[in-house]
Amino acid sequence: MTLAEFQTWLKKHKIDAYYLTRNNMFLDEDILPEENKIMALTGFSGSAGNLIITPEKAFLFVDGRYQLQAGLETDSETVEILCTVAASPHSWLRQNFSNNRHRIMYDPWCLAAEELERLVRDLPGTKFIADDKQLPGPRLSEKSAHVFEIGEQYAGVSREEKISGLLQTMAAHNLDAYLITSASEVSWLLNLRSDALPDSPVVRAYALIKKDGSAVLFGEHLDYSGIRSFAELGKALKKIRKGRLGVSYRRMPQIIRELRGPDICLTPDALEKDKAVKNPVEIQGFKKAHQRDAVAMIEFLFWLENNWQGKTELDIVEKIDSLRRKQDLYYAKSFDTIAGTGSNGAVIHYHPTVKTNKTLEKNSVLLLDSGAHYFDGTTDITRTIALGTPTPDIINDNTMVLKAHIELASTLFPTGTPGRALDPICRRELWNEGKNYAHGTGHGVGFMLNVHEGPQNISAAGSSYGFLPGMVTSIEPGYYKENAYGIRIENLYYVTEAADKNLENPMLKFEVLTLVPIDKRLINKYLLSEGEIKWLNDYHQKVLTAIGPLLDNGPAEWLREACSPL
Amino acid sequence: MTLAEFQTWLKKHKIDAYYLTRNNMFLDEDILPEENKIMALTGFSGSAGNLIITPEKAFLFVDGRYQLQAGLETDSETVEILCTVAASPHSWLRQNFSNNRHRIMYDPWCLAAEELERLVRDLPGTKFIADDKQLPGPRLSEKSAHVFEIGEQYAGVSREEKISGLLQTMAAHNLDAYLITSASEVSWLLNLRSDALPDSPVVRAYALIKKDGSAVLFGEHLDYSGIRSFAELGKALKKIRKGRLGVSYRRMPQIIRELRGPDICLTPDALEKDKAVKNPVEIQGFKKAHQRDAVAMIEFLFWLENNWQGKTELDIVEKIDSLRRKQDLYYAKSFDTIAGTGSNGAVIHYHPTVKTNKTLEKNSVLLLDSGAHYFDGTTDITRTIALGTPTPDIINDNTMVLKAHIELASTLFPTGTPGRALDPICRRELWNEGKNYAHGTGHGVGFMLNVHEGPQNISAAGSSYGFLPGMVTSIEPGYYKENAYGIRIENLYYVTEAADKNLENPMLKFEVLTLVPIDKRLINKYLLSEGEIKWLNDYHQKVLTAIGPLLDNGPAEWLREACSPL
Repeated sequence: MTLAEFQTWLKKHKIDAYYLTRNNMFLDEDILPEENKIMALTGFSGSAGNLIITPEKAFLFVDGRYQLQAGLETDSETVEILCTVAASPHSWLRQNFSNNRHRIMYDPWCLAAEELERLVRDLPGTKFIADDKQLPGPRLSEKSAHVFEIGEQYAGVSREEKISGLLQTMAAHNLDAYLITSASEVSWLLNLRSDALPDSPVVRAYALIKKDGSAVLFGEHLDYSGIRSFAELGKALKKIRKGRLGVSYRRMPQIIRELRGPDICLTPDALEKDKAVKNPVEIQGFKKAHQRDAVAMIEFLFWLENNWQGKTELDIVEKIDSLRRKQDLYYAKSFDTIAGTGSNGAVIHYHPTVKTNKTLEKNSVLLLDSGAHYFDGTTDITRTIALGTPTPDIINDNTMVLKAHIELASTLFPTGTPGRALDPICRRELWNEGKNYAHGTGHGVGFMLNVHEGPQNISAAGSSYGFLPGMVTSIEPGYYKENAYGIRIENLYYVTEAADKNLENPMLKFEVLTLVPIDKRLINKYLLSEGEIKWLNDYHQKVLTAIGPLLDNGPAEWLREACSPL
Repeated sequence: MTLAEFQTWLKKHKIDAYYLTRNNMFLDEDILPEENKIMALTGFSGSAGNLIITPEKAFLFVDGRYQLQAGLETDSETVEILCTVAASPHSWLRQNFSNNRHRIMYDPWCLAAEELERLVRDLPGTKFIADDKQLPGPRLSEKSAHVFEIGEQYAGVSREEKISGLLQTMAAHNLDAYLITSASEVSWLLNLRSDALPDSPVVRAYALIKKDGSAVLFGEHLDYSGIRSFAELGKALKKIRKGRLGVSYRRMPQIIRELRGPDICLTPDALEKDKAVKNPVEIQGFKKAHQRDAVAMIEFLFWLENNWQGKTELDIVEKIDSLRRKQDLYYAKSFDTIAGTGSNGAVIHYHPTVKTNKTLEKNSVLLLDSGAHYFDGTTDITRTIALGTPTPDIINDNTMVLKAHIELASTLFPTGTPGRALDPICRRELWNEGKNYAHGTGHGVGFMLNVHEGPQNISAAGSSYGFLPGMVTSIEPGYYKENAYGIRIENLYYVTEAADKNLENPMLKFEVLTLVPIDKRLINKYLLSEGEIKWLNDYHQKVLTAIGPLLDNGPAEWLREACSPL
């Protein structure tokens, strides 16, 4: 079904607007191309966005990262791009659909019940109609996928122990059963993973946990014994006694309410925090995975220095991926590698394709954002790398981004500080130069799960969820000069208590996981404070000590130079 | 009526809880003692807090500033103190009054309709009952008060111009009348002030603006011609045609809904932003008022240096107040002067009384937080002043607070950055030493109105309202060592565009209004960066240039020394 056909259908059925979210029935962004209804209807391939389709026009709401790309990928005759900074789908609907009785349609599998509730509240008089029959493509891809267990030696805690934690929550609410609709929470709870998606090894299933500790999975095309089809979900939910079914409110698609009716005990998320706070075995795994990842990255940087001329962005993607694949316990990429040279680096979420592929640009930089899942942890690193002799502007801008990174990475903060309070600490160095970046400062990282994981994140509009010891986060300030170059410096950190016993109040700090040198050729030392120089030298010393012994002679020698004091 | 009598009455009428807010019918904190129902029932005299009274016990919810004080002023047998960081009245009610049909009573004049709506939503099954008959004391003091006009030479914009702005908003919503229930907005709109309260010259009245531009005031005991009693409000509201009465949602007490019924067009606040963004005449006035205020403060500091020994905190209050009173265009104090020496300085909102009054402590500091309303602007300044030879600990802590102040005062930030994003920039220097302060970093300041004015403020939990050019704010980090000393450094600033034309993005900055030296005897120069030393020297040079010529010989000479470079 094309956009025009869809609009004709809407008109015929007197629907004033269809509200289409980009996420899937797990309310996740991570979907397969054949499941991407926004792409099918408009051509937009970005990883986040919402679409409102009226019989006359489609309105695509994207964030700052995707404004350029959305414009390039869609037809301005039929699709209007709106930046979510100026207008959210909700505020737009309020403005354009209030004061009258309208009919708005939505997909009950892919819209959070909580979001629908807000819409109903904000648009009194409007009739909301559930329907996903007309959407193009399958709800879930029909490719079959493999489900496998993640051993306790990696997960740290057995499935039984995790479930017994959930049973306590259930007992407190007097529940017979608890439905989990988040794929990553199902995967975490049951120590299961799957290969359905290329980058996120989540098991795309709902799980119904009974108070005897048993778990029933609902999914499609998964080779897991005993799994049931989503068609059976309604019946299973109806079987639970009155008042005894619990669901996490924030993550519940509206379809659950439609299948079960209003009789649901809505609880705060029972698993999100336990998943985000990594256990000691997971932290240990993260550290080891980052050591192997650093070996691959340093081998790559060594190779690049001697081989960059004439290479293309796609060559870079292939090279770094192939070096990672050789590492022990490698499972898959954790996301599509971003390799942008020159002006391509300025497109924040650029992935090279055959169409856009560029030869590495001399006297500029390569922005390389990549990572992997290992069975013992997940990595995500961005380095900006000098090619030839970059201009002083590039060097100064990179130095400012480095200052921003250090500013946040070295700060202490009280337990429970939300990410939105950490975000400006990172930006301040850039703000003072009149600069900024149109993306968040950091995201949580799953343990061999989604590389972007909540509930915490570091961004201005971000969640108010407080940081706790054991959480893993990226810190990744950047700077993008349109049509010229892009810079980003990203490390992963885990949160831990600041050990200094003299502190009057207990404080948290970031402990670094990523161990790869930051390009000194792109640093103007005279812009750094003494403290910042010390931070960098200490970091490089740590990298050299930890990774040097793991390398062959060539890369080891390269690393010694790359880590020598500034 | 005592607390015990009130509880007996509740029990007799089968009321499970009475929810009592500290504010008045304008939803302001600024009330007269005889109007303070929480104080009448519990003894707690703090400026913020909420009380939930059950037949068995009263629960007093206060913020970090007031935890100590609330414990001292109330009887722990009958009143339990809860800190709002751990439990808000709402979360407490949800925990203790859900899952059952309860009866909760409230005062419809002093509870925001929006808050009641949230309570109703959060506590389904609970019956909410409006009643203010049993509360002790009058709703508004029976003392009569004088109303006067503030000239256009000070206000900058005439009442007619301001009303015509509101009429446009009314026209956009197709309204016949607009009810303003915020005393400070009524005062600002009509260029009126009154002496009803000692510190806030607001006219405590509601105003009904008709679409012909006429204004009817509702108030009690005010000498303003044509003013009507609140008893007439219901009738006046009922007269407005159906669908044609507008009220600002956020500031509407529930009583309006009870008097008018559901037929109210709820709009975003129509005046709050216009009031917070000062016009050029107001900014000019603020500058001049701060010059005169600086003269008084510097005369005080000069006097203090030669006269502090043997003086008490109350002597200090009298001295600074008397010096301010001599200044041109002085109207009144803008709040109760805080003068705390030694351990009294560590009580964040300490005001000396005959009971607590202490002689100034040698080798410690005096924390002095004071300010005034002048007809052309309002001031609010805190200085921490050395007495004798303060200990190195005090000097180091004061230096850290100064660093925190400078960090925020010198930052640039994008237009629309909310105060909650500016707050951590100020705290970071203290966080890194394991220190913090249990109050906000800054508040908006009214133009000869409330010294604490919204919508913007700088605090962690603070409003998400973005900063705009023309807003006036305090920056006031502090540090408090229990039973030892208190430190705070507060200046007022107005927000303006950073003029540097080379900036890639337009940025805002803080421009200082307060012009009083910061005590150099309390600074450890070796803890300051070069940039921080330059900030301080530049600030002192600015103070000397602006205020030096306005002083007599003695204070002028003192100022030269106080402002000499560090």
